[in-house]
Amino acid sequence: MRIALLGGTGDIGQGLALRWAHDTNHEVVIGSREAQRARTKAEEYETELASRDADAAVEGAANPEAAAGADVVVLAVPPYHVSDTVEAVADGLDEETLLVSPAVGMQSDEAGLHYHRPGAGSVTAVAADAAPPETPVVGAFHNLAADRLANLDADLSVDTLLVGDDEDAKDTVASLAAGIEGIRPLDAGPLANAAEVESVTPLLINVARYNEGMHDVGVRFE
Amino acid sequence: MRIALLGGTGDIGQGLALRWAHDTNHEVVIGSREAQRARTKAEEYETELASRDADAAVEGAANPEAAAGADVVVLAVPPYHVSDTVEAVADGLDEETLLVSPAVGMQSDEAGLHYHRPGAGSVTAVAADAAPPETPVVGAFHNLAADRLANLDADLSVDTLLVGDDEDAKDTVASLAAGIEGIRPLDAGPLANAAEVESVTPLLINVARYNEGMHDVGVRFE
Repeated sequence: MRIALLGGTGDIGQGLALRWAHDTNHEVVIGSREAQRARTKAEEYETELASRDADAAVEGAANPEAAAGADVVVLAVPPYHVSDTVEAVADGLDEETLLVSPAVGMQSDEAGLHYHRPGAGSVTAVAADAAPPETPVVGAFHNLAADRLANLDADLSVDTLLVGDDEDAKDTVASLAAGIEGIRPLDAGPLANAAEVESVTPLLINVARYNEGMHDVGVRFE
Repeated sequence: MRIALLGGTGDIGQGLALRWAHDTNHEVVIGSREAQRARTKAEEYETELASRDADAAVEGAANPEAAAGADVVVLAVPPYHVSDTVEAVADGLDEETLLVSPAVGMQSDEAGLHYHRPGAGSVTAVAADAAPPETPVVGAFHNLAADRLANLDADLSVDTLLVGDDEDAKDTVASLAAGIEGIRPLDAGPLANAAEVESVTPLLINVARYNEGMHDVGVRFE
């Protein structure tokens, strides 16, 4: 499959790009608002993969071009850019394209990070509201520590929770998740259950802050 | 230490009572609104413990009597009874007593269970608001599956997250948690971080519902 990582130049997008390029045979294309920035990052990722004898090609393109040819489009952008990003690429989406939403809205105070629930109910719902009605949306990859994901030397051994109303689309994303070594996909039900999944991300950051040796902590359900 | 489990006649209270009585030397007293019901349950727990050659005494009393003599009072009651329960036992609480809040407010719809955040910010905050100002409150034991906890044959291997503003009180509860075989306490920060901890409970129930073989699932941070 061809996977476009919009916002693939940083944070969770970088880790997913490197892991999919390294662990699977999927085509990976980095999307950014600036095509040149996407191409520069794609070359950086290729250099890192080559240094590990992983001869994987990573492409770079402006978001609309990246999305247009992709089977799966991951919205690896900050939560407040999810709507805009979907609208910017909407012409390239149809019922054959699958949108994946990993973003989480958070607020911080002195105590730690807190889940900021959007009016739509969740960021995944924001993505679904912005998407063409025929394009299935799956929430996934919310609770992965970006640095750990991007460090190919780091063992993952974490779960990722999937939410969505289209079971076939959810199965496809589950397969993509399972293709990354150390990630186990679990079903958290329909899209209406997204808020409880997204809420885990600020919790993980709080757990990392208040417990020694738990930097970049992930979650497992056992 | 002497631990009073208000609402120890069912759900999470039963499991904590059995585990503490079985795994530690702490004194365990079951509290209930009806003293006779508490005594009957305490006898049931003693019978079960005796059948496992654990010769542990479990007492039963009305909530105010149970709380009055206790070092630690666990509010193992439904979220909508937390305030009333604290008020009913307030005369027996002082700066030497430690209140523990494991309750979580949830709502259900077709998709699953959802976190219902009280106006106070969390159920733990509701308990703190109702408690005498000198009594420290710690949120803990929210995310334990009641049936698995109450089944002494079941392996736990789960984490429990602690929130609270009194570090000494949190340390005490961490020790109590660690006294139960298979429970690892983790610090989730001040009481203001309680909502993200409580939110995990509906998520666990959704994960149990949508994944085969994950009945009574717990959470681990790794």
